Amino acid sequence: MAVTCLLEVVPGETFEGFCLVKEVKQEKTKKGDPYLNVTVAKKHKMVACKLWNNGFGGKDVEEILSIFSNGAMLHIAGDASEYNGQVQMTISAFRQAVQGEVEMSEFIESAPESVESMEVEIRAFIDEIKIPILHQITSELFEENNKYFMYHVAAVKMHHNFRSGLAFHTLSLLRIAKNICDQYGEAVNRSKMYAALTLHDMGKIIEMTKDTAAPEYTLFGQFLGHIQIVNQMIDRKLVFIRSQRTVSLEEVTVVYELMNIISSHHGPLSNGWGSTAEPITLEAHLCHMIDNIDAKINMISKATVDMKEGEVQKIWGLGKIYKAKGLDK
Amino acid sequence: MAVTCLLEVVPGETFEGFCLVKEVKQEKTKKGDPYLNVTVAKKHKMVACKLWNNGFGGKDVEEILSIFSNGAMLHIAGDASEYNGQVQMTISAFRQAVQGEVEMSEFIESAPESVESMEVEIRAFIDEIKIPILHQITSELFEENNKYFMYHVAAVKMHHNFRSGLAFHTLSLLRIAKNICDQYGEAVNRSKMYAALTLHDMGKIIEMTKDTAAPEYTLFGQFLGHIQIVNQMIDRKLVFIRSQRTVSLEEVTVVYELMNIISSHHGPLSNGWGSTAEPITLEAHLCHMIDNIDAKINMISKATVDMKEGEVQKIWGLGKIYKAKGLDK
Amino acid sequence: MAVTCLLEVVPGETFEGFCLVKEVKQEKTKKGDPYLNVTVAKKHKMVACKLWNNGFGGKDVEEILSIFSNGAMLHIAGDASEYNGQVQMTISAFRQAVQGEVEMSEFIESAPESVESMEVEIRAFIDEIKIPILHQITSELFEENNKYFMYHVAAVKMHHNFRSGLAFHTLSLLRIAKNICDQYGEAVNRSKMYAALTLHDMGKIIEMTKDTAAPEYTLFGQFLGHIQIVNQMIDRKLVFIRSQRTVSLEEVTVVYELMNIISSHHGPLSNGWGSTAEPITLEAHLCHMIDNIDAKINMISKATVDMKEGEVQKIWGLGKIYKAKGLDK
Amino acid sequence: MAVTCLLEVVPGETFEGFCLVKEVKQEKTKKGDPYLNVTVAKKHKMVACKLWNNGFGGKDVEEILSIFSNGAMLHIAGDASEYNGQVQMTISAFRQAVQGEVEMSEFIESAPESVESMEVEIRAFIDEIKIPILHQITSELFEENNKYFMYHVAAVKMHHNFRSGLAFHTLSLLRIAKNICDQYGEAVNRSKMYAALTLHDMGKIIEMTKDTAAPEYTLFGQFLGHIQIVNQMIDRKLVFIRSQRTVSLEEVTVVYELMNIISSHHGPLSNGWGSTAEPITLEAHLCHMIDNIDAKINMISKATVDMKEGEVQKIWGLGKIYKAKGLDK
Amino acid sequence: MAVTCLLEVVPGETFEGFCLVKEVKQEKTKKGDPYLNVTVAKKHKMVACKLWNNGFGGKDVEEILSIFSNGAMLHIAGDASEYNGQVQMTISAFRQAVQGEVEMSEFIESAPESVESMEVEIRAFIDEIKIPILHQITSELFEENNKYFMYHVAAVKMHHNFRSGLAFHTLSLLRIAKNICDQYGEAVNRSKMYAALTLHDMGKIIEMTKDTAAPEYTLFGQFLGHIQIVNQMIDRKLVFIRSQRTVSLEEVTVVYELMNIISSHHGPLSNGWGSTAEPITLEAHLCHMIDNIDAKINMISKATVDMKEGEVQKIWGLGKIYKAKGLDK
Amino acid sequence: MAVTCLLEVVPGETFEGFCLVKEVKQEKTKKGDPYLNVTVAKKHKMVACKLWNNGFGGKDVEEILSIFSNGAMLHIAGDASEYNGQVQMTISAFRQAVQGEVEMSEFIESAPESVESMEVEIRAFIDEIKIPILHQITSELFEENNKYFMYHVAAVKMHHNFRSGLAFHTLSLLRIAKNICDQYGEAVNRSKMYAALTLHDMGKIIEMTKDTAAPEYTLFGQFLGHIQIVNQMIDRKLVFIRSQRTVSLEEVTVVYELMNIISSHHGPLSNGWGSTAEPITLEAHLCHMIDNIDAKINMISKATVDMKEGEVQKIWGLGKIYKAKGLDK
Repeated sequence: MAVTCLLEVVPGETFEGFCLVKEVKQEKTKKGDPYLNVTVAKKHKMVACKLWNNGFGGKDVEEILSIFSNGAMLHIAGDASEYNGQVQMTISAFRQAVQGEVEMSEFIESAPESVESMEVEIRAFIDEIKIPILHQITSELFEENNKYFMYHVAAVKMHHNFRSGLAFHTLSLLRIAKNICDQYGEAVNRSKMYAALTLHDMGKIIEMTKDTAAPEYTLFGQFLGHIQIVNQMIDRKLVFIRSQRTVSLEEVTVVYELMNIISSHHGPLSNGWGSTAEPITLEAHLCHMIDNIDAKINMISKATVDMKEGEVQKIWGLGKIYKAKGLDK
Repeated sequence: MAVTCLLEVVPGETFEGFCLVKEVKQEKTKKGDPYLNVTVAKKHKMVACKLWNNGFGGKDVEEILSIFSNGAMLHIAGDASEYNGQVQMTISAFRQAVQGEVEMSEFIESAPESVESMEVEIRAFIDEIKIPILHQITSELFEENNKYFMYHVAAVKMHHNFRSGLAFHTLSLLRIAKNICDQYGEAVNRSKMYAALTLHDMGKIIEMTKDTAAPEYTLFGQFLGHIQIVNQMIDRKLVFIRSQRTVSLEEVTVVYELMNIISSHHGPLSNGWGSTAEPITLEAHLCHMIDNIDAKINMISKATVDMKEGEVQKIWGLGKIYKAKGLDK
Repeated sequence: MAVTCLLEVVPGETFEGFCLVKEVKQEKTKKGDPYLNVTVAKKHKMVACKLWNNGFGGKDVEEILSIFSNGAMLHIAGDASEYNGQVQMTISAFRQAVQGEVEMSEFIESAPESVESMEVEIRAFIDEIKIPILHQITSELFEENNKYFMYHVAAVKMHHNFRSGLAFHTLSLLRIAKNICDQYGEAVNRSKMYAALTLHDMGKIIEMTKDTAAPEYTLFGQFLGHIQIVNQMIDRKLVFIRSQRTVSLEEVTVVYELMNIISSHHGPLSNGWGSTAEPITLEAHLCHMIDNIDAKINMISKATVDMKEGEVQKIWGLGKIYKAKGLDK
Repeated sequence: MAVTCLLEVVPGETFEGFCLVKEVKQEKTKKGDPYLNVTVAKKHKMVACKLWNNGFGGKDVEEILSIFSNGAMLHIAGDASEYNGQVQMTISAFRQAVQGEVEMSEFIESAPESVESMEVEIRAFIDEIKIPILHQITSELFEENNKYFMYHVAAVKMHHNFRSGLAFHTLSLLRIAKNICDQYGEAVNRSKMYAALTLHDMGKIIEMTKDTAAPEYTLFGQFLGHIQIVNQMIDRKLVFIRSQRTVSLEEVTVVYELMNIISSHHGPLSNGWGSTAEPITLEAHLCHMIDNIDAKINMISKATVDMKEGEVQKIWGLGKIYKAKGLDK
Repeated sequence: MAVTCLLEVVPGETFEGFCLVKEVKQEKTKKGDPYLNVTVAKKHKMVACKLWNNGFGGKDVEEILSIFSNGAMLHIAGDASEYNGQVQMTISAFRQAVQGEVEMSEFIESAPESVESMEVEIRAFIDEIKIPILHQITSELFEENNKYFMYHVAAVKMHHNFRSGLAFHTLSLLRIAKNICDQYGEAVNRSKMYAALTLHDMGKIIEMTKDTAAPEYTLFGQFLGHIQIVNQMIDRKLVFIRSQRTVSLEEVTVVYELMNIISSHHGPLSNGWGSTAEPITLEAHLCHMIDNIDAKINMISKATVDMKEGEVQKIWGLGKIYKAKGLDK
Repeated sequence: MAVTCLLEVVPGETFEGFCLVKEVKQEKTKKGDPYLNVTVAKKHKMVACKLWNNGFGGKDVEEILSIFSNGAMLHIAGDASEYNGQVQMTISAFRQAVQGEVEMSEFIESAPESVESMEVEIRAFIDEIKIPILHQITSELFEENNKYFMYHVAAVKMHHNFRSGLAFHTLSLLRIAKNICDQYGEAVNRSKMYAALTLHDMGKIIEMTKDTAAPEYTLFGQFLGHIQIVNQMIDRKLVFIRSQRTVSLEEVTVVYELMNIISSHHGPLSNGWGSTAEPITLEAHLCHMIDNIDAKINMISKATVDMKEGEVQKIWGLGKIYKAKGLDK
């Protein structure tokens, strides 16, 4: 009997069920016959499929491509085999899902915590910002953008590239920062850390498209990068506050200090990783290092989830990674 | 008879005349007696002086330091000798200049062209910007800031670190750009080049202090750098225009493109030289390369002005530089 | 009806016309049948073609390869389709062009200006060299080599890799240099600039093969590089002049200074880009920077010519490049 | 009246009290008279002193040097002045402290927590290591070496260069790691983290001399570095355990994995910072990043302790650092 | 008639003979039929083969894979053609070799000298080590490990990746070192050089698997690298000697100096090439440089063996390499 | 009684004898009195001296400077003391040496072998060059330049900066090369190695001044570097040979290959160390590596000659260096 959940498909099985289309490429056989390379997915599981010409069901290429479009929900049937150690499937039948037939959220990868609880926790961190102007700016920018912020990815390809990845990444940094602040006492300024970390990647809601299925860099993102974008958001907020009330030089200074922390959260300029100013405070250095920790944990966890215990693999951007086995692992 | 113009002082001469104090350091002899190392200047000529304790004229150190303050205009007498190939002077008498006794402008190094003619020429370039929103932004930012812009230095230490150095450097780039645009025709967008070059270093009026005698980096300059500062000025201008009239997506895009050209005018991020985004247009690449040309010409001219013909010297940031001699040089 | 000019071929059309063979690779299908991957071209337009075994017309592979040879002019028929966003063609018929049937010059990409006018203009620049020994060396080397110089490519792959690309690139640099010299007056030595720029890449006529259809590095080019080759040409000329008349030390010095400018025109040694000495004069630094400007303008123009407006593409050696749209572009 | 505690000395005051000799250099005046440059200290406060020839009290240089030796406790009298913004003192009288006259611990800078409480807390961490062979190795190495470990410096010059600096640094990392482990759950292996962090710098007890007043690199330290030294300690322990009982392959593997974490705690080899193997587990990457955080916090705290609020200074290894002022700082 | 020795196979010939299986990959045709890509070898000659489904002889994929396993000796028949300038073969028949039918040693690439003579010569070098503790350690480690040492490869892919490559490489370095020592006299310590060179790569017998047909990195190799592994072997030997007799501080020091030479034989840490300590003696610097010479000679010889005279090819890790022709070559 | 040989001077002694002036700097005391810092030398021993104003013997500064000129041979008297661990001397009397009073060769550091024997040995190597055109070029260039070549230094500051250092360095490389050629047989071309090594640094006779007491870079040396200079010498020789007889393409090729070996003897261009072409033969790679070996041996020997056994010192360009003690050292 056929497997009906894509997460359970293994070579040798027949599959009949729903899946999300992630990527489609039209190809030609050496004889010139058109066929499709399609990647279908459920959550983090991706399966490469072939749809041969004789499986087009009499449709021409244009019709087929209008069905197999990026982000479409389809019901397909196919036989799973193995190719280069990966599952591969030849599609024998397909149809579009009917409205209401499937729950989209069961197919999209999301942060492992609920949007609601994360939102509550981030707000609690914002409430701990004791420098009024930083509190006001952070709070207002969060509230004005949180419809996008809470659902956005944190990356096109690298770490946290899933629904609500941006919020989850932001919250993870705040949690690490809380512990560092608790541990080191007055050496670290908690208000500046919480404000900077809440905002540090907020520019990504403009740097990358909002489509969480397959996010891409926007033109504006490529012109300025997410650091300059969020600094612009902060500056506009500062201008607005100034139009409402007198802002002291001290307050302006601390807002610029906040922008410096954000400007330098990709490390020193000499890295060439996109910081827009040198870090010149402890908080700026910390913001970069904490960001690194969460990014690396996410990248390595993602990279090792499908590895076998005891295996070593080369991972892009990390070098070789070993997945432990034995003892308590 | 004593020399009266600092520009003419050579070892062996006695000097009696006016000079500007550029730098003062209080020192102690091995015996513990206080004395001053003072650098005095007229235009580009700097002379290192000693004011020994026995030359204090009965004043205590605090009084002396209130006279020999950074930027003060003094009348001094002294004997010039040579030390390590440089003129050095021991001050034997001094007094503060009386109001109106000397013309400050004869002592400060300035751009080799008049502020008035440079201002006219820059405005003419701005008039050539044919994209209306770029013209408006550039023109308004220039007019609103030109009181500072026209007199500001372009650097603390490196190239164009003199009065109106910023305006002169900006104008030099515009002139080079004009010729490049004339030569390459439609390949290069003249309006974007003129807008970007006029504005590219305008953030320096906030990044560095306005005192042209001895400019320093400001705190805001160190938080953001001049690139982010001018991008902020442009963004505020864009927000203002939007509050007055509808701005099309096309127009916003071209303003962000302008910010990209400025963001990347220190070259690719991998240089680590302070660009805040990668250059992604021909105009962005050109802006960086033209900036380089004018900077190098200024640095080498400055470095070689006091070298002898036929000499080779090591210059900071340039390596060895040879000053040609013979033939037409 | 079939398209007859390769420049107009788009997917879906049938083509019947002439084309130049740029590259040929013999391949085998999985079944072991031989077939050819052929790149044909007209001017800058390249089309990838397949010639299947059943299209060999009974000829064996050797015969086919003798017809589809690099640089051959053929008349072919084929159907154009699309593959990975590129035109691709399956060749159904072919024959060699008859002598005189087509004009080769209509198929080869060339500099956008006539050889004659460029030659006149370069000579005019050489006439402006006012240091006699530099004038003599530059003029004689230009005249002795101009048969090759005026038609040679400037590169195997990168910028100006077309017929007369070397002359066009050289002339472009001279034009930029003229404007710089006009703008900066005595700071820059016009004679040295013109001599150095005229000669700087002349070694390429030996570094690369003269076949402008598909130039390659020569063995001598790989042994020495074009910088050492042209310095050798200059040195031999100097030896010759010395055999005719007395040459003063001043003159020898200025010739060595010329060789230094050329030696360092790929920038400081630390770049690792092939300079053979450090730049130690303003002219040497300028020569490198001006070379860069023309190279980048050519590379970006070439890279964007086939991009759509509003598009961003990754270009080898340049990173991402955006092609502007809207307003005056 | 004279100040008696070195911590309170400011320019203009006379000092009479005890101090520790940190560094001594014999110099000569231009006339050839010998004198000493002496650095004396109490806790973190260092004061540069001059002992002129006429203050030698009739002793010759050898006698003087035997009194002013590195680490000696002296009672001195002197007048404090200012030199280059630093306190400087001319010594007018001196004598060696009598045994029991002063409490050494009041003069040496130490970790801000008591050795006893730190030792208890580190042991509690070791008890949390749930992989038996890692627990045994870590526990035994800690117990065998803790007489040195608990009092040793963590560096010659950089961060944590004070008494018990090694223990304090180690404990700080364990505390950060605990929070990371709590936050990320099973993604991070707590036992491996605690074992690796406890041991990671233990090799420093051999790499640097035990004299906490002025530690130096030992010859063995320079031959192998602290990473190879501690790996050797672990290996010897493994050999010993094997001589007592059978050790499974699984156990050997986890011990080597531990050595890999330690080997790579200075980051990837390409950094050139002294790692002896590439990090190939999440724990290895984490160990490096956590080490960085504590080091940077310590370095910046140390660098800013004597800066004024609002000031920016260039700090070796960190670039410019700003000390915040105003608001909650 | 069919060729029977794989070394003689050229395109167009039929082959029938024995060969060693070096690599096997299961693939599928576009139609989904399974087939194998097999690399077979004799000595240094590698031939890529296809075994199509219709050549499986009725066996299923599992059976086929159990025959075509890595390291298997097979008798095959096939037709050789050319593909991309390389010989390629389609296998038409195959069977496993019978025990004793072929001599394995005729199929494996080995060092060009006999194991016996190399062993004698290395022992003679060890006998020249005049520092007793270095002699004892080197000699005992060599004798205890020489069963593996004499047959092991020196690399997975790079230089000396053949049977006894490790011994041959080691011996080559000893020979170069002998001449250097003879030439420079007392400047170089012969005993330290011989001890260090004999041991420098001995850790590879644990870093890489012992299977000389297709060596791979072991897990332990990836945890520590061959430098730390051999230093561990030396340290264990030192511990053992100490358990037998008193070892003076001088002796311990020279053993640690030996470990430093080995630790740094990949050059300075800043290279990022895997040294585990900085070189701090002449012998350490020399060990690295001599290692380089033998490695480069082997790499270039290997790379050029199949090139034609007069040809230039790009070689991984070396750049372009020219194979001389003419004259005495 | 006074010491009469500078080599034997230690602190506390009085010296009366001859010495060579190596460096002179005019200074002023804080009071403005002139004095001299003079470095005098015998062989490798350098002693820093002071000549105070009261020791001028009534002469004025100009007279004094005409006596204490660079390279002068003087008889001086002085008292030696210690300063910063170095001998320092105050000159109490001085006079110029009379013609014939001292043997200059006893004061200049020279290669440790005689010029005559070195010349014989280099000629013997040249005789082993079996490619006629390489033999002719090498032999003629050696004979034409050997008056300078045999006495020239090999460096201004680094390794082999002594009389005949160039010849000694060249010969050392030839000796290493001979052994490498003997060991590796046909893999290395002996003729090319000998020709390239004999000539590789010959350009230094023009790059640096001929004064072996205090060599400096010449202007021509800075314009071209010694590599381009010797390649020019080779090219002129080739041109000359061509004027005498027909030279085959094969012969020209091998001469250019020789120039490639020399061009690349500072390693790959990416090093930025001054190679003028990439190494593309084994001989080119070897030439660089052998050059390195002799340079490092010389630098480390020179650096350690005055160190105490057991000491570690930081050496410019080498990092820390340890001088072994104990056992056989």
